[in-house]
Amino acid sequence: MSWSSKTFIGEVRKLDQKRKETNALLLPSWLEHRPLVTTVELELNLPNLNDNTGDLDRLTKALKAGGYDPIHLNPLQISRYVAKTRQHQFEIKAVLGNALCHWDLIELLPPSSRSPILGIALDLGTSSLAFYLVDLNNRKILKEISTPNPQIGIGEDILTRILFSREDDNKRQLQHLLLEAFNQTVLSMLSEDGFLPADVYAVTVAGNTTMSHLLLGLDATTICKEPYIPAVNRFPFYHARDLDLRVHPDALVYIFPNVGSYFGGDLIAGILASGMHHSEETSILVDVGTNAEVVLGNRDWLIACAGAAGPALEGGVVERGMMAAPGAIDRIRIDPGSLELSYHVIGEGKPRGICGSGLIDLVAEMFNAGILTIQGKINRRIDFSRIVATTDGPGYVVVQAKETLDERDLVISEIDIGIFLKSKAAMYTILTVIANKVGLHFEDLKHFYVAGTFGNYIDPSMAIRIGMIPDLPLSTYQGMGNTAGCGAVMLLLDRHLLEDIERVCSQITYVELNVNMELMNEFRGALFIPHTDPKLFPSVQIPERALGKVS
Amino acid sequence: MSWSSKTFIGEVRKLDQKRKETNALLLPSWLEHRPLVTTVELELNLPNLNDNTGDLDRLTKALKAGGYDPIHLNPLQISRYVAKTRQHQFEIKAVLGNALCHWDLIELLPPSSRSPILGIALDLGTSSLAFYLVDLNNRKILKEISTPNPQIGIGEDILTRILFSREDDNKRQLQHLLLEAFNQTVLSMLSEDGFLPADVYAVTVAGNTTMSHLLLGLDATTICKEPYIPAVNRFPFYHARDLDLRVHPDALVYIFPNVGSYFGGDLIAGILASGMHHSEETSILVDVGTNAEVVLGNRDWLIACAGAAGPALEGGVVERGMMAAPGAIDRIRIDPGSLELSYHVIGEGKPRGICGSGLIDLVAEMFNAGILTIQGKINRRIDFSRIVATTDGPGYVVVQAKETLDERDLVISEIDIGIFLKSKAAMYTILTVIANKVGLHFEDLKHFYVAGTFGNYIDPSMAIRIGMIPDLPLSTYQGMGNTAGCGAVMLLLDRHLLEDIERVCSQITYVELNVNMELMNEFRGALFIPHTDPKLFPSVQIPERALGKVS
Repeated sequence: MSWSSKTFIGEVRKLDQKRKETNALLLPSWLEHRPLVTTVELELNLPNLNDNTGDLDRLTKALKAGGYDPIHLNPLQISRYVAKTRQHQFEIKAVLGNALCHWDLIELLPPSSRSPILGIALDLGTSSLAFYLVDLNNRKILKEISTPNPQIGIGEDILTRILFSREDDNKRQLQHLLLEAFNQTVLSMLSEDGFLPADVYAVTVAGNTTMSHLLLGLDATTICKEPYIPAVNRFPFYHARDLDLRVHPDALVYIFPNVGSYFGGDLIAGILASGMHHSEETSILVDVGTNAEVVLGNRDWLIACAGAAGPALEGGVVERGMMAAPGAIDRIRIDPGSLELSYHVIGEGKPRGICGSGLIDLVAEMFNAGILTIQGKINRRIDFSRIVATTDGPGYVVVQAKETLDERDLVISEIDIGIFLKSKAAMYTILTVIANKVGLHFEDLKHFYVAGTFGNYIDPSMAIRIGMIPDLPLSTYQGMGNTAGCGAVMLLLDRHLLEDIERVCSQITYVELNVNMELMNEFRGALFIPHTDPKLFPSVQIPERALGKVS
Repeated sequence: MSWSSKTFIGEVRKLDQKRKETNALLLPSWLEHRPLVTTVELELNLPNLNDNTGDLDRLTKALKAGGYDPIHLNPLQISRYVAKTRQHQFEIKAVLGNALCHWDLIELLPPSSRSPILGIALDLGTSSLAFYLVDLNNRKILKEISTPNPQIGIGEDILTRILFSREDDNKRQLQHLLLEAFNQTVLSMLSEDGFLPADVYAVTVAGNTTMSHLLLGLDATTICKEPYIPAVNRFPFYHARDLDLRVHPDALVYIFPNVGSYFGGDLIAGILASGMHHSEETSILVDVGTNAEVVLGNRDWLIACAGAAGPALEGGVVERGMMAAPGAIDRIRIDPGSLELSYHVIGEGKPRGICGSGLIDLVAEMFNAGILTIQGKINRRIDFSRIVATTDGPGYVVVQAKETLDERDLVISEIDIGIFLKSKAAMYTILTVIANKVGLHFEDLKHFYVAGTFGNYIDPSMAIRIGMIPDLPLSTYQGMGNTAGCGAVMLLLDRHLLEDIERVCSQITYVELNVNMELMNEFRGALFIPHTDPKLFPSVQIPERALGKVS
């Protein structure tokens, strides 16, 4: 039994449908097909006495004449290139990778070769790695696999891993774990369809600043120490051979750049995925992970910031909170009349916890039913059987023991709610501060993109009700799914995005919120539900009971 | 006793002095000091909360601002670069190599570092390797060592080595021999002065087409097969790590390009050394090695060719011929009255053979004394004790057995002279054909540069007398010494020569003489001494006796 009341089945199905659609990695319609790695068929003049051009020069001259200029190549492959060119009587198909300022000659294939031109896009997340196998010629995502980040065994959170990485051996171990996971996952993805590692000519990686550093074996320790400066913002192009990636050894490896320690390549990829950097209209992109990361802007300007708003929103800090995964309650409705509670569980089994969207629903519905006051206190004046005393003060029983997986009451305490409200207040504050920075009113926003799993599960009307996000028309909000993965795939398919990335990076203004005092004042108002200033949320009706003093 | 007659001691001393001067690798006065590898001292802003630029980006931004743009680097060194930058509180000295279209970040040194910036220039010859250790900061050749080419053990001549290289294992063996010789020689050059391999940041190599290919492990077999197309004309920049050269692993390795199978990087370096590509006046550069290679031109145009004129001129084919080395007779004078012969031996010991300049002197002096006819026959009407009968027909005793090292008469036969005259005729023919190609008269030549050891030893007045080189004022002729080595050193000291090289390579027209029929007609006239057309050599007096018919 997934819904305790049938009233909400239709609603949850609608939300599920929407979620599936965005999970499927929608490539934007404006994306052109100019793949990062391309092939050119060449018919070279045969060497003759009247033309003493060397074999390799003959090849590079023809490529340059075709606009592939300048050409770089691995000098240790020249022998092989020359032998192949002669073997195929100077008719040859060149595999060329675009590295922004030059082209890389990656491979020479027989002119008639039908072997695929593949790429791997990697969303290098702190908790999971999402791999996309992409056919660059046919503009198709062939396969998608997500695996847990193997570094979790060393530390669940980024900070633990950074501290662990202080020893060189440990740093190498962290890197090795990722490279091994890459090699194993990619090999299995390829072999299922009979592809070869050498068919993969490009790898794009979008990760947060720390994860990118750990993948490359770079020092990540300065990221979490004031003044929070990473070793590298813009990574050079790597080749697979540099990292022992088991794809084509000369495959291009592109790591999305970061704009600072707390604004990584995953966000840059997210900007690409949203297309906000192309739009005349001003949009905002929010990614809630360990931090909440926010980008605001349009094709002319971009401003970004990140702040510690995330964990509770994702279900990470609250006692019975959990990530959006099977067993998590992700939807809750409370009938304001009967105070009857209905819920939905991901995977349709018994609940074992509550994820971010479930928490938002819970607080919003408790508030709507008057069980929660505008200060976020449980209204004990309502004589309601679900309200219990816990060691953490008053609590609210979301699911009774008999219905849960662990046969314990699933209770949320006032302290849990307090923690959650701090996160939602932090989120709203970040949005307010960044809008104020550029003198913008929320009403001016045409699109509000929410990235990640969180973006897919969240119900904007509930998030508005608790004052977590601005009170904008619901059509403004758009869950984006895995924007990091999407951006990484997009780059494989359109090399011109390399220029977009350059432009975005040089255009973006990063505001370090950690040192912004304006934050505290905004924050205090946002701790209330929805806010101390109700004019900010005209659509939210404040129930009489929520205004009642809690004795 | 080095001179049998004291008459010529003054003359030989004068020639020796001139030779020493040119051997000392004179750098042209127009050469500017813009070394291939340069250092830049940087004082970077310290990281702070208002500037989230990454450490590496901070460094590259500063370099770009200084005009070092674009910057390439070895991605595997980023960790080390970042650590060094922080270690020295963002004051750092960058070592930068110029690779024509970009700069290579090779190393970071402490700001106060006094460690030297060294380069190695290598003249990669078929018979010997000449190494020059160059101080790039102080524009100084610190040391110069010449060693035999270790491939001689496999084959004295290029062709044997090419044939040997057909097996991959053999090709690797040939390459390995050169790399080992490089590593051992350079290590000993460095350690004598307490330098470290890592102090060497650049290596320039000027070799003929085959030697360059063998050094890089490239297929050389197509060089000697019609249509004589090498694998590569313009080599990409290598790094020392690619070739396991034991200098700084990221040192730039530049291999001079070739213009064809028979016109190698040694000649391109020679053009640089002569400066003819800068001059308004038209010059000619001749390099006599296994082949005779000729370049004609000025700053606006260049034409080149190569032909088989060399071996006999270098002393290689004639029975008692030998390279210019200790024991070789390099100077000969014959008194036309007494017919008394005087000679000089390199190294001042007993003679064991006769080198190219000795042969030129011998034939010129025999002709002048009437011992040789204009047809190159020994004039037996002159009843002279030195004329003997050999199994190869009449011969001329240059040195009697009692004075030679092997206690055998040092005899030159009419057949030897015939072989030699074919070579000198080939040389004059090549010069004539190339001048005709561009409608030029020899009188228009302002400079006639003769490269190599041969250029240092040759006496132009003698070479003119036998009709080997045009009858120009003696001041036109200039021995250039090791032009390949000189050009390679020059490039270490002035990176702008990279552009000169590009220009020379694209400007130069290479004429394949092997397929030119005009050659045979010119050749027949040039077989005579000095020529069938005496008007071509107005300064040469033809002695009465040399006109005499030989019975």
